[in-house]
Amino acid sequence: MYEGVVQDLIDELGRLPGIGPKSAQRIAFHLLATDPADLARLQDVLGTVREGVRFCEVCGNVSEKQRCRICSDPRRDATVLCVVEEPKDVLAVERTREFRGRYHVLGGALDPLSGVGPDQLRIKELLSRIGTDEVSEVIIATDPNTEGEATATYLVRLLKDFPGLTVTRLASGLPMGGDLEFADELTLGRALSGRRAL
Amino acid sequence: MYEGVVQDLIDELGRLPGIGPKSAQRIAFHLLATDPADLARLQDVLGTVREGVRFCEVCGNVSEKQRCRICSDPRRDATVLCVVEEPKDVLAVERTREFRGRYHVLGGALDPLSGVGPDQLRIKELLSRIGTDEVSEVIIATDPNTEGEATATYLVRLLKDFPGLTVTRLASGLPMGGDLEFADELTLGRALSGRRAL
Repeated sequence: MYEGVVQDLIDELGRLPGIGPKSAQRIAFHLLATDPADLARLQDVLGTVREGVRFCEVCGNVSEKQRCRICSDPRRDATVLCVVEEPKDVLAVERTREFRGRYHVLGGALDPLSGVGPDQLRIKELLSRIGTDEVSEVIIATDPNTEGEATATYLVRLLKDFPGLTVTRLASGLPMGGDLEFADELTLGRALSGRRAL
Repeated sequence: MYEGVVQDLIDELGRLPGIGPKSAQRIAFHLLATDPADLARLQDVLGTVREGVRFCEVCGNVSEKQRCRICSDPRRDATVLCVVEEPKDVLAVERTREFRGRYHVLGGALDPLSGVGPDQLRIKELLSRIGTDEVSEVIIATDPNTEGEATATYLVRLLKDFPGLTVTRLASGLPMGGDLEFADELTLGRALSGRRAL
């Protein structure tokens, strides 16, 4: 459609998730009119990403140093581990300001159809952490979807061999601010079966 | 929120138009998991853009060579010029397959509040093209908004000095496939005043 580099730019941008052809065109023309210094910054950060982003050697979260901020913070309770799928889930839990323990990032969820089995996830590292550190509780905070639930079930089976370890799962139920009428059957069913005495 | 380069990447992506914090995060994590070769391609194309994209010396459209494809195509009628604001408008007119003349890209529209006056647009170049080539018609295809209309009015005043030159403006009216009921007053007013005998 366009000539040369402009079309290349639109094509490359259009490959990013959630960016359709119209957005790619708008961003491309924005970049064409952008200060070269700003372009250089974007280029540089892509270069750094390409050289490889580091992951915390303990929890697997993205990190600047060998150990991430949370794993090197002595005020965080090392006896409670929250197991999540992705680094962005760490951020989601952190935003609640309710959790003072540490994290373990699996790097995904079990999904045999996409070729993700237990060996593709950081499960061995989780078991060795529990064996070494004095972990008293593991909170399984994988996503409440098919893959996340399968991963949770798999982990529960592995973890019940550790004596004295409590394994918990995030509660499922109605989202706050929601409307009972609009809840799907599965969510409402979970909310019913997980009802609490007041 | 995140550490180091991941946050830098999210920040840089979030500066692009139409990309909010959530999209920036999703794209960033996509890029973290992307094949380095793909990242290199995106980086390279940004580098090429940064070195400067070339514009056709005749019409001002983005171009690989000194002259764009349309200006160097002898089958395109050089006596009819379609004046548009931006390169993407050239593409929009080309998509209709109704126009066989050539283009002139102004590089924007008059907008005194943002500091865009006649000298910031390629108006001098337009006048010299009309003076040199044997242009018989100029179609003003600026956007049908305040700035585009102001630019059109300004151009009409300049171009009426050229003897034998026809100056036309794209028709305003109801969009095809639209609904009379939902047309705004301005559009419906234009459609009324521009009604045609059948």
